[in-house]
Amino acid sequence: MTFSTSFVSDIRFGEGVHATIATSAGALEARGVLVVMDGFLAASGLGEQLAAQFAAAGIAAEFFSDFAGEPKLAHVQAASDAARGKDLVVGIGGGSALDIAKIAACVAAADEAPMHYALAAHPLPRKPLKKIMVPTTAGTGSETSATTIFAGPEGKKLWIWGAETKADLVLLDPLLTVTLPATLTAWCGLDAFVHAFEAATNRNAHGGAALYAHAALRLLTEALETAVKNPADIDARGKVLLGSCYAGIAIDNCGTAIAHNISHALAGLAPVHHGLATALGFEATLAWLAEADTADLAAAAHACGLSDAALLPGFVSDLMDRCGIARALPKAFSAFSADDLAREMRAPENQPMRRSTIRDVSDADIDRIAAAMIALPKTL
Amino acid sequence: MTFSTSFVSDIRFGEGVHATIATSAGALEARGVLVVMDGFLAASGLGEQLAAQFAAAGIAAEFFSDFAGEPKLAHVQAASDAARGKDLVVGIGGGSALDIAKIAACVAAADEAPMHYALAAHPLPRKPLKKIMVPTTAGTGSETSATTIFAGPEGKKLWIWGAETKADLVLLDPLLTVTLPATLTAWCGLDAFVHAFEAATNRNAHGGAALYAHAALRLLTEALETAVKNPADIDARGKVLLGSCYAGIAIDNCGTAIAHNISHALAGLAPVHHGLATALGFEATLAWLAEADTADLAAAAHACGLSDAALLPGFVSDLMDRCGIARALPKAFSAFSADDLAREMRAPENQPMRRSTIRDVSDADIDRIAAAMIALPKTL
Repeated sequence: MTFSTSFVSDIRFGEGVHATIATSAGALEARGVLVVMDGFLAASGLGEQLAAQFAAAGIAAEFFSDFAGEPKLAHVQAASDAARGKDLVVGIGGGSALDIAKIAACVAAADEAPMHYALAAHPLPRKPLKKIMVPTTAGTGSETSATTIFAGPEGKKLWIWGAETKADLVLLDPLLTVTLPATLTAWCGLDAFVHAFEAATNRNAHGGAALYAHAALRLLTEALETAVKNPADIDARGKVLLGSCYAGIAIDNCGTAIAHNISHALAGLAPVHHGLATALGFEATLAWLAEADTADLAAAAHACGLSDAALLPGFVSDLMDRCGIARALPKAFSAFSADDLAREMRAPENQPMRRSTIRDVSDADIDRIAAAMIALPKTL
Repeated sequence: MTFSTSFVSDIRFGEGVHATIATSAGALEARGVLVVMDGFLAASGLGEQLAAQFAAAGIAAEFFSDFAGEPKLAHVQAASDAARGKDLVVGIGGGSALDIAKIAACVAAADEAPMHYALAAHPLPRKPLKKIMVPTTAGTGSETSATTIFAGPEGKKLWIWGAETKADLVLLDPLLTVTLPATLTAWCGLDAFVHAFEAATNRNAHGGAALYAHAALRLLTEALETAVKNPADIDARGKVLLGSCYAGIAIDNCGTAIAHNISHALAGLAPVHHGLATALGFEATLAWLAEADTADLAAAAHACGLSDAALLPGFVSDLMDRCGIARALPKAFSAFSADDLAREMRAPENQPMRRSTIRDVSDADIDRIAAAMIALPKTL
């Protein structure tokens, strides 16, 4: 066993810790701060509350909420421009807000535009602005990862990756997640579950990251259904949020596998929620994957409270049932065939997730999986 | 549940990772390096091997091995002077080498002497030299902690504490621990076990650090006896080394408790190995502690594979038996009475460990515990 594990170095968890955002920025010696925040959150009263926090701390804070949906180049460009001259960026919201904040904090440290760094064309500035990440959904794990995703000028998904994008401080406040609707709680929670599962069982899995991945599987197994059904249950919300964060650390170290190949391939065809797409791809492949019967699969099963990896497919389908996840794709997928999806699954950018899968993924496997995915009802 | 967990941000584990010390220093952009290394290690061939590594990497490296036993002011002063003008310090050896390296990396970043920073008299320089820590014993967890201990001008134990002392990179190589004698393997391993146990069960315990503490208890329960009895078992050595590192993260976040009050009090009277003193203090108080019957004690028991906290005292005594730990103090303790030890246990510097203990520690408890400790044979 040999491994290398990197972590976000400071995580603070608890009901109400979002009240410490401005004082935490002060402790990081910030004088000028850009807050990248989902627009609906800014409008919810949280924007005013945060502005008051920064005023009380004597820190100049500017707010940026001019984005919606998945991050696009225009968003990250505008946020980067807004961050210039500041010394700290707060990202607060879902994965999009966090990714935009992480990119802006890096790009603003030099004179180049975001595209200069896309797909690792050039190394990121060595001294990015400091970053505080405050997730309000529990799923992407973006708060702990070294990666970001945005749509380039032609709408193609691009990424900016590097240790420079990592947060200096993560604040996990379950209070900020209680308004997340049940459907999104379920989709994001399953995304986190699959992050943990794939990081713990793929070809890059190692004992260092398994510590986090197994903790995430335990927390999500224990609390996700409750968080979906009883949205105000702070204890369950906290466990799901912490599980999502740990799952993010796990994938940041070990990456994902076939379920993410499928969800990225689906997203290449038409808009679909990443968590839903991942959950559907996971369910469609888990029985096949579990046949590999590796020690890592057995350990992941144990973390879910199961005696054997063979029980995993039934467990996951039941978890998805209990979380009310409909097995269906958005209507837009009616326009695509299994061949279209298989082509996306074979696209170069999705091969790392294919190769990291613990079983060899043959072309026949891809055709079979793509057919099963496209056979799902297109009713969402 | 609210907690704040801080981590060393990069841990690399594996047989042979010590061969990457110089290239890792290069990746951290080091041009001039001070290597603080136990003298016997430097003489063992590892010194030459490391010098060759640095030469091959084109990095100027100076070696400092002019210390023995627990760190004294003269050692940390000389190491700090040697580190001036360098940009990275490697600590390789037991807890003493690591503590000296951590202090030197901080002190060398400014013009003051080490005593300027002792007991937090002044804040540490904000931009310390970079640090790579490579433990060759498995116990202190110094590689992951923000604290250091050294003896001041009058021989009194002092500490220098701060996030600035933390390593940028920890390299855990079980190969470097195979020559550790059985007695030291056992003493250091028990020290790590108690770190994990106290961090997981004291008044400061929280879920964030419990992740590491429980992992450490599992690893040490599984592998310590094997590492003692079969010193060349790399798998067991690795588990003990990783367990010790995780236990260090746990105490770095949550601190220790009564067993460390006792071991520090014993060290205030006469020289005694810290791991032995801690193990003896732990065994002498565990049955009393376990009566508290908290959820944290139960969780720690589960991590040791036990169904109930009431089984902990028997388990720990058996573990100490299996690891061949003699229940005895060094001969020098013949000169001291239970009152002497009780006085040290009540000394101001040992009160944080008394207060953090999950049960209230009354003066009568201290007298009783001190009497039990001093009643041990003084035959070492």
